[in-house]
Amino acid sequence: MSSAPFELADHLDDVTELVRAAGDLALRWYRTGHRVDNKRAEGFDPVTEADRAVESELRRHLGDRFPDHQILGEEFGLSGHGPRRWVIDPIDGTRAFITGQPMWGTLLGFTDGDRPVAGWMHVPVLGETFVGHRQTSLRTADGQRRLEVRPTERLEDAIVLCTHPTMFAPGQQADAFARVADRVRMVRYSGDCLNYGLLAMGLADSVIENGLASYDIVPLVPIVEGAGGVVTDLDGNPPLEGGYVVASATPALHEATLELLRP
Amino acid sequence: MSSAPFELADHLDDVTELVRAAGDLALRWYRTGHRVDNKRAEGFDPVTEADRAVESELRRHLGDRFPDHQILGEEFGLSGHGPRRWVIDPIDGTRAFITGQPMWGTLLGFTDGDRPVAGWMHVPVLGETFVGHRQTSLRTADGQRRLEVRPTERLEDAIVLCTHPTMFAPGQQADAFARVADRVRMVRYSGDCLNYGLLAMGLADSVIENGLASYDIVPLVPIVEGAGGVVTDLDGNPPLEGGYVVASATPALHEATLELLRP
Repeated sequence: MSSAPFELADHLDDVTELVRAAGDLALRWYRTGHRVDNKRAEGFDPVTEADRAVESELRRHLGDRFPDHQILGEEFGLSGHGPRRWVIDPIDGTRAFITGQPMWGTLLGFTDGDRPVAGWMHVPVLGETFVGHRQTSLRTADGQRRLEVRPTERLEDAIVLCTHPTMFAPGQQADAFARVADRVRMVRYSGDCLNYGLLAMGLADSVIENGLASYDIVPLVPIVEGAGGVVTDLDGNPPLEGGYVVASATPALHEATLELLRP
Repeated sequence: MSSAPFELADHLDDVTELVRAAGDLALRWYRTGHRVDNKRAEGFDPVTEADRAVESELRRHLGDRFPDHQILGEEFGLSGHGPRRWVIDPIDGTRAFITGQPMWGTLLGFTDGDRPVAGWMHVPVLGETFVGHRQTSLRTADGQRRLEVRPTERLEDAIVLCTHPTMFAPGQQADAFARVADRVRMVRYSGDCLNYGLLAMGLADSVIENGLASYDIVPLVPIVEGAGGVVTDLDGNPPLEGGYVVASATPALHEATLELLRP
């Protein structure tokens, strides 16, 4: 007797609860004198016990429920087999986290083959959980509502978000971003994963970032797309490997942005 | 029969409640399709109805309770007479506010002659109210606790916060900030007023900013100093007129920072 075929839609609510509970574990270490490790000796790449606690919790539950799916996580790598994969970033925004700034979150994505088909972002300090699968919703203690990008088409009207200006290499890359920054209504740095949520909420118009890892962006693609937005790499392809990522409220704004960013 | 002499300490709790209630008014406009005005035609300087609502509420109550004090606010200017002055920034971090980012707050300072003797910062989204008067406390729904900076003395160990890199003019000023950024452990942009609270909490070590108005910084001086920190302009003087402001966890870090920032 074989088990019923896997239907992601059957698991959306359960997985949402799981992401919320796992992400909230990190609050135990937030704004406390938590230990900060350096993963890479040459640079500053903080990894906290919180990262490991959140990812372990997610892996344990996902492994139990979906034993024939792969799991890829920032802290503990790849396990399992098969075309269906869960992608975990236990704390996106560790720099914000260790500084006591509220804009960090737990990310979970689900890919089927090469396609990201669902994404979760839970922001523990704000009690907000974004869920993207065909459409995008924001779930809070007050209930849930559907999200939609706003119809900004011109660079001059756009609020652009980016986690940090040093994401862009000095020279051509930084110059290209500066061209965009000079044209748009406003640039705000910081934000990490929440930037993509603000885009989905219609509160910002673009996110432009570089140097992302796969697990940084795969969970966010369904959240942006489910709200009507566009997210690609610099060549207009799906940004599934991370790297340079541009997300926009509308195709027109996206094209105008990519054009300015190209050498 | 004359009234009792004014003692600020008698009013700390009442004023804290007032700041909290007034600041929370802004939540009505947060993340909604609120109207954004441009105060200055040439630049982007958003002023929202929320700004005006918060300042009006504060002015009304402060004027009733302290009719012989001055009130200076961002939106409605100066009223009243006398050496004692209340200084209001109804929403510090309007750019964060209109983008749906949580790091904005309502600031209230109290100066006696030229000396800022008390400051309040309420961060409505986080439900956090910082109160500085001789010492600094953080008040939340869970109670109140005393804040203290951490003892960072070396630039290499410092986390530096700054709202936006374009606060520094291209050329000498930007180069000076870059010298600091190259030396320290980490720079995070964004944050606005909350940056000074994170310094007071011992979660960051410096705040370096430029182009502040008087009402941006006067309320924050007692919050930083009451937690043991140092805050001056580039010349080491009290930064009561705004402009260039450096705040540090320790005198040693402060001196090292000022030295690097000087031409």
